[in-house]
Amino acid sequence: IRSGFAEVIFCARKADEHLLKIFTRLYEQDGEVFGTRASEHQYELICEKFPEVVYDPLSHILKIEKKDKKRIGKIAVCTAGTADISVAEEAAQTAEYFGANVERIYDVGVSGIHRLLSRLDTIQSANCVVAVAGMEGALASVLGGLVDKPVIAVPTSVGYGASMNGLSALLTMINSCANGIAVVNIDNGYGAGYIATQINRMGVHQDE
Amino acid sequence: IRSGFAEVIFCARKADEHLLKIFTRLYEQDGEVFGTRASEHQYELICEKFPEVVYDPLSHILKIEKKDKKRIGKIAVCTAGTADISVAEEAAQTAEYFGANVERIYDVGVSGIHRLLSRLDTIQSANCVVAVAGMEGALASVLGGLVDKPVIAVPTSVGYGASMNGLSALLTMINSCANGIAVVNIDNGYGAGYIATQINRMGVHQDE
Amino acid sequence: IRSGFAEVIFCARKADEHLLKIFTRLYEQDGEVFGTRASEHQYELICEKFPEVVYDPLSHILKIEKKDKKRIGKIAVCTAGTADISVAEEAAQTAEYFGANVERIYDVGVSGIHRLLSRLDTIQSANCVVAVAGMEGALASVLGGLVDKPVIAVPTSVGYGASMNGLSALLTMINSCANGIAVVNIDNGYGAGYIATQINRMGVHQDE
Amino acid sequence: IRSGFAEVIFCARKADEHLLKIFTRLYEQDGEVFGTRASEHQYELICEKFPEVVYDPLSHILKIEKKDKKRIGKIAVCTAGTADISVAEEAAQTAEYFGANVERIYDVGVSGIHRLLSRLDTIQSANCVVAVAGMEGALASVLGGLVDKPVIAVPTSVGYGASMNGLSALLTMINSCANGIAVVNIDNGYGAGYIATQINRMGVHQDE
Amino acid sequence: IRSGFAEVIFCARKADEHLLKIFTRLYEQDGEVFGTRASEHQYELICEKFPEVVYDPLSHILKIEKKDKKRIGKIAVCTAGTADISVAEEAAQTAEYFGANVERIYDVGVSGIHRLLSRLDTIQSANCVVAVAGMEGALASVLGGLVDKPVIAVPTSVGYGASMNGLSALLTMINSCANGIAVVNIDNGYGAGYIATQINRMGVHQDE
Amino acid sequence: IRSGFAEVIFCARKADEHLLKIFTRLYEQDGEVFGTRASEHQYELICEKFPEVVYDPLSHILKIEKKDKKRIGKIAVCTAGTADISVAEEAAQTAEYFGANVERIYDVGVSGIHRLLSRLDTIQSANCVVAVAGMEGALASVLGGLVDKPVIAVPTSVGYGASMNGLSALLTMINSCANGIAVVNIDNGYGAGYIATQINRMGVHQDE
Amino acid sequence: IRSGFAEVIFCARKADEHLLKIFTRLYEQDGEVFGTRASEHQYELICEKFPEVVYDPLSHILKIEKKDKKRIGKIAVCTAGTADISVAEEAAQTAEYFGANVERIYDVGVSGIHRLLSRLDTIQSANCVVAVAGMEGALASVLGGLVDKPVIAVPTSVGYGASMNGLSALLTMINSCANGIAVVNIDNGYGAGYIATQINRMGVHQDE
Amino acid sequence: IRSGFAEVIFCARKADEHLLKIFTRLYEQDGEVFGTRASEHQYELICEKFPEVVYDPLSHILKIEKKDKKRIGKIAVCTAGTADISVAEEAAQTAEYFGANVERIYDVGVSGIHRLLSRLDTIQSANCVVAVAGMEGALASVLGGLVDKPVIAVPTSVGYGASMNGLSALLTMINSCANGIAVVNIDNGYGAGYIATQINRMGVHQDE
Ligand SMILES: Nc1ncnc2c1ncn2[C@@H]1O[C@H](COP(=O)(O)O)[C@@H](O)[C@H]1O
Ligand SMILES: Nc1ncnc2c1ncn2[C@@H]1O[C@H](COP(=O)(O)O)[C@@H](O)[C@H]1O
Ligand SMILES: Nc1ncnc2c1ncn2[C@@H]1O[C@H](COP(=O)(O)O)[C@@H](O)[C@H]1O
Ligand SMILES: Nc1ncnc2c1ncn2[C@@H]1O[C@H](COP(=O)(O)O)[C@@H](O)[C@H]1O
Ligand SMILES: [Mg+2]
Ligand SMILES: [Mg+2]
Ligand SMILES: [Mg+2]
Ligand SMILES: [Mg+2]
Ligand SMILES: [Mg+2]
Ligand SMILES: [Mg+2]
Ligand SMILES: [Mg+2]
Ligand SMILES: [Mg+2]
Repeated sequence: IRSGFAEVIFCARKADEHLLKIFTRLYEQDGEVFGTRASEHQYELICEKFPEVVYDPLSHILKIEKKDKKRIGKIAVCTAGTADISVAEEAAQTAEYFGANVERIYDVGVSGIHRLLSRLDTIQSANCVVAVAGMEGALASVLGGLVDKPVIAVPTSVGYGASMNGLSALLTMINSCANGIAVVNIDNGYGAGYIATQINRMGVHQDE
Repeated sequence: IRSGFAEVIFCARKADEHLLKIFTRLYEQDGEVFGTRASEHQYELICEKFPEVVYDPLSHILKIEKKDKKRIGKIAVCTAGTADISVAEEAAQTAEYFGANVERIYDVGVSGIHRLLSRLDTIQSANCVVAVAGMEGALASVLGGLVDKPVIAVPTSVGYGASMNGLSALLTMINSCANGIAVVNIDNGYGAGYIATQINRMGVHQDE
Repeated sequence: IRSGFAEVIFCARKADEHLLKIFTRLYEQDGEVFGTRASEHQYELICEKFPEVVYDPLSHILKIEKKDKKRIGKIAVCTAGTADISVAEEAAQTAEYFGANVERIYDVGVSGIHRLLSRLDTIQSANCVVAVAGMEGALASVLGGLVDKPVIAVPTSVGYGASMNGLSALLTMINSCANGIAVVNIDNGYGAGYIATQINRMGVHQDE
Repeated sequence: IRSGFAEVIFCARKADEHLLKIFTRLYEQDGEVFGTRASEHQYELICEKFPEVVYDPLSHILKIEKKDKKRIGKIAVCTAGTADISVAEEAAQTAEYFGANVERIYDVGVSGIHRLLSRLDTIQSANCVVAVAGMEGALASVLGGLVDKPVIAVPTSVGYGASMNGLSALLTMINSCANGIAVVNIDNGYGAGYIATQINRMGVHQDE
Repeated sequence: IRSGFAEVIFCARKADEHLLKIFTRLYEQDGEVFGTRASEHQYELICEKFPEVVYDPLSHILKIEKKDKKRIGKIAVCTAGTADISVAEEAAQTAEYFGANVERIYDVGVSGIHRLLSRLDTIQSANCVVAVAGMEGALASVLGGLVDKPVIAVPTSVGYGASMNGLSALLTMINSCANGIAVVNIDNGYGAGYIATQINRMGVHQDE
Repeated sequence: IRSGFAEVIFCARKADEHLLKIFTRLYEQDGEVFGTRASEHQYELICEKFPEVVYDPLSHILKIEKKDKKRIGKIAVCTAGTADISVAEEAAQTAEYFGANVERIYDVGVSGIHRLLSRLDTIQSANCVVAVAGMEGALASVLGGLVDKPVIAVPTSVGYGASMNGLSALLTMINSCANGIAVVNIDNGYGAGYIATQINRMGVHQDE
Repeated sequence: IRSGFAEVIFCARKADEHLLKIFTRLYEQDGEVFGTRASEHQYELICEKFPEVVYDPLSHILKIEKKDKKRIGKIAVCTAGTADISVAEEAAQTAEYFGANVERIYDVGVSGIHRLLSRLDTIQSANCVVAVAGMEGALASVLGGLVDKPVIAVPTSVGYGASMNGLSALLTMINSCANGIAVVNIDNGYGAGYIATQINRMGVHQDE
Repeated sequence: IRSGFAEVIFCARKADEHLLKIFTRLYEQDGEVFGTRASEHQYELICEKFPEVVYDPLSHILKIEKKDKKRIGKIAVCTAGTADISVAEEAAQTAEYFGANVERIYDVGVSGIHRLLSRLDTIQSANCVVAVAGMEGALASVLGGLVDKPVIAVPTSVGYGASMNGLSALLTMINSCANGIAVVNIDNGYGAGYIATQINRMGVHQDE
């Protein structure tokens, strides 16, 4: 694979038959498979044919992963609240599957800034930071001001009322006045994990 | 005045003749006058008849204020950036006119969180905090987490692109997950100064 | 607790196991627990371990509260319609849990202004007024003009069509031309109860 | 004219030559002409050829009206603030031109509800009420609750920030929970005056 | 009843117990009851105590109506499509309950303009026209151009995609350049029936 | 030119020097040039070097066109109002430049449906109809129902208030329930003229 | 049928009885019937009376089609992803029912541009191209640049987060800077198939 | 400077006196200064005191830069159209000032995909790609599919009608289904240049 990234399955809305076919094809091709947004039902479907498949109901990731894959560098995945963790796990496990070390720093939202500050050393030592937040989404701006590496911001649909299913958090992050921030789609943990891995690979090679 | 607040003039869009009449009426009634959103031209107009009138081109406040008015308590007015200061001054000077002491803490936006933390003692000693911010408007959330007194958040129209003239900052603030925050209209420094004064009066009396 | 406010549980979207753990921790720490946005199912879950827990299906509040807590001052909680009462109760019970006296003035919407006017004395005697309204949300403006104390406006998602799940009411309230109004998120009774309590405490101390 | 309403000129964006031609045609046809949204410049243009033309810079109405036209019935035109008066005058003068008596009740916005209540008798005696308001636009709801005749609501672009040039007021009015309200476009005084005249004519004939 | 309109029950979101109580109270007071937006379940609930109650699953109206009520005048209720009929029936039956004759002209949308034109005589003979349409909502404009009486436009949530649940139809109707149109909320058949009745009463008396 | 369409200059926002260069290049290449959205100033600029250039201040088209070009088939360009004509002319002149016969049917908006019906024969004889309308944009739906050929709908920014600079008209047209309609961007007369020409060419060849 | 297009049933939201009646009427009239947006349940309903009816669960088309109908010309129906295929099939089968040959080119989205380029010959040989895409909807622009025939763009509701149920794709397509593109409503495969057929007929006749 | 990035001046909305002071301070501190969004007037102001200052009217960058600064790695800055170049230059010159080599690939929008493909080698050899596009903003998706390095997408306010000043392009880019894309604010060339520089530094070190 020229890009160094295996093909991944976006399971949502895939018909059973179609999913099974593509899963099988990828397994035969790569010896491992990574699916996002899978349902409990899809897990059972795949499990019948591939009993070794693993399903994480929090991140909705469905995968068969090769043993002993090497992981390099470091990506810090931060969340504002606990409800953002399912999106954060999609990012973290995507990055891990693609070969990055991931440090999880969860529930460090800006309404309790000291929890975030107490974890700063870990965050600053990463090659890339993923900032996952819903509601007002201010975490990305604070992180952008505190770290010198790229911050990939992921708005989440967590919230109610004027959160408008993540649009408010998206706008907050796009308008950030901190330097070194770029944004992906609402709840797009996968996309953040992917680009963070691209960045991390650069940073890793650099230290070797 | 039952409410303890004198009538104020919203100068924007008022015809010259109309403004002069209302200004004169209030001057005769209260011996002082407070106008917001006044233009340079309106200043000159009033100045002809009331040479003692004072105009602040930053906040666009036009006023004649009685000497030696007593000020009580403390309101902290904070801004994220320097471009938010004109709105902040509208809030601060409104509160001062209505008899509150005001502490200005400007340019302490969340992309440089340490500047904010270094001023925390001052902020925490106020009866009410006014948080003025445009762009991503995250300042209110951070302040809400750091202070135990009510935070009145003022989104500003500062920004460009997806800031949508302050709507993004408004949404950020309304969605804040910190406790003790309520929001006024975009650029409504006057409204924030007014309600902060109401709150400050309660806090002040309490200490006497 | 420095802030004088115990930690509260936002039950929505919390996994059973996680909710039970946090509930237990808070109970052990404070001897009482307050949870918002709890489901019937969550009530049953907690009830098994804490039979003394109380659940209000209207406000979705789940709590164990200490006996004989003192309440001070007065907060007036007003609604426009009967459908707004569940949000109002979240505000009222939050304020009561945090130690405020609450006066409920329900179903006094502006399309029948005389019902509101007949309750004015009670409302004007409060330290803070919470105005809860959906649809066109005009209640906050009318109250803002009638009382001298801060009005915390809570838009609700009550309505249909162009109410856009509360956004219209939110915009109405943010644009209010009455003095002394600030706004919290759609359906955020908890947030309104919290800041109203902060304000009420100031007002109460003031009279002692 | 089958409809009982003469043709009217919408002057905005009309080229000089085109305006002059249509004005002349209507003058020759009806012996009087009514134009809305005319500029100072257009007034001067028409004035050269028709020196008897009258221009009102507040409502931007440009007209030649026949003497001694009879007016019937009563329409009450109410505004929330003084800045709404230019739109209200477009409505009032349209209705007068089409032969209705108009009662003007200006500056009776809901943040000072008693001013409105003190004028209630006049308002309730009209066949139709036009409610003109910007900002939060709550006037229509309050009037809807107080009168038994149709209320035509006109949102105005008066306001700033989240007023979004009248969209907030429009939403408020459309969502009104009072009975007997219908809404026209933002700043569309002409449209309100027209339909109010249609309603007034019905009401008038009824008393004869 | 001063207004000449009995109190009506908005059944949606009402608890069983509450609905039964209010239904009973109104029945005792007026000898008849009119409820909108009632569910099948609510019908069964009321039916147990009031077997004479009638439920229309199309309009969701639940009512007990006095026999031999007189109806006066004429209101024309028109729809663009068949899917708009449930909203139109809410309007029509509201008007009938309040004593108006109603002419139903359904499925005369503008994409087949000749069907509409063939019914024009009937429509033009009404005192008031109610135009019910979703999707692009153009019916109101065409009717506004064809009739000399007030047109009350009701946008419906019928449609998909960019219809945005009726917002597009609402905008179309509010922007209409035809004379004599005013608009109520999306799907608000009740509101349209109410104001149409007010107008019809004026027109009726006029002919007597 | 493979596509049968010469390159066209979008003059808006082009620097003088850049415009002159591109104009000259196209003149040398094609012997004729067609520019849209040109300003008076740009006309004068080009005129100095190319005195034969023609400028239409209504459509803002700037062109040098070869003599005696053959035109084929027929496109009907219709507008709702007179203010839509500048966009319609952009469409019409684009189509003519690209070799189509164009029939102009202006000011036939749906609030006066009979004017439209009286021109129906002409419209129905075209290979493609361009429907240009602002405000409520209903013209496209009515035309879609009356003709069997493709209708290209062009929303215009004509209007005020809730017309939102053409967005309302765009939504109306996109939601049309008539068959055979597709929509281009607000004010995009050029785009409509282009695709109408593509369609017309097919229709024309068919008759030969 | 003057227009050369049979009447079609939009099955969504139709009551059983109503659907059966209209289906029967059309069958008796035309000897074949075409219904869109039909549910599994509606299929079973019709199947009882018309066992020869065919249902496609992917496109939700329900039809009885005459044997050996002639198909002419060529329409290329392209999709960006596999999730867009259900909308594409609605377009394709509509066009086929109305007598067009359809070439399906699926899953050629712009994030893998080479797949699209490899199918270009086929696409360029069509009389009309239908471009079906959700998410960012960029397919239409790329196709518009590559083909000389009209491109009908269909945004789909495929996507999540900021896709806003297809509004983002709609905006992308409406803003396209490629020539020869026009847009229909979100998920409106039927509408695209209809206008593509109109265009294809012109192109076909031309070659005969 | 810990971050390896000098402080930059955002000149827009800065008062003369304030700008001069900050410019002087930065010059004394760093020996060079970089300002964005400067006006012609601000250039003249600074020029009086610092005659060596350079102003680029296209990108609105105002700077004094040290001679012979080393540049490393490679960033590809691509635009869809020529009107996007001013934003692209802000990105490119920011990256150059911060020490990156920049390759400019302008006017390669997706409506003419072959121009883009012909420059692919250059683009693929960069450590980071900046994709600048207005209107429909599809360039980012196409690039995301063609390169293996991070793509930073910059929507621009170029366009008209439904481009909504760049919001449409922003939505397109955020919804991109290509891998390895993240987005900054509308017209935020500076922000893109900054994060691209962070990424480029990682990629550069890696090769040494
Ligand atoms: N201020 C106004 N707002 C909306 N519509 C108006 C206004 N003034 C006049 N009109 C309508 O515009 C028509 C004239 O439009 P026009 O032919 O463009 O001059 C009149 O017959 C009225 O129906
Ligand atoms: N379908 C409806 N849509 C809007 N308002 C309604 C509707 N039905 C009844 N109403 C209004 O709702 C009032 C009753 O509201 P409630 O007290 O909540 O039952 C009635 O008096 C009417 O003014
Ligand atoms: N008024 C217009 N609206 C939209 N697109 C246009 C317009 N005029 C020209 N164009 C397109 O813009 C292209 C030229 O763009 P440019 O290279 O920026 O001059 C032409 O080839 C047309 O495709
Ligand atoms: N064009 C720009 N867009 C967004 N942010 C910018 C831009 N130029 C500079 N900045 C940021 O604004 C900061 C300076 O802001 P200020 O203190 O208001 O001058 C810089 O350090 C950058 O982080
Ligand atoms: Mg940073
Ligand atoms: Mg706090
Ligand atoms: Mg007040
Ligand atoms: Mg009423
Ligand atoms: Mg009419
Ligand atoms: Mg048609
Ligand atoms: Mg093309
Ligand atoms: Mg890539």
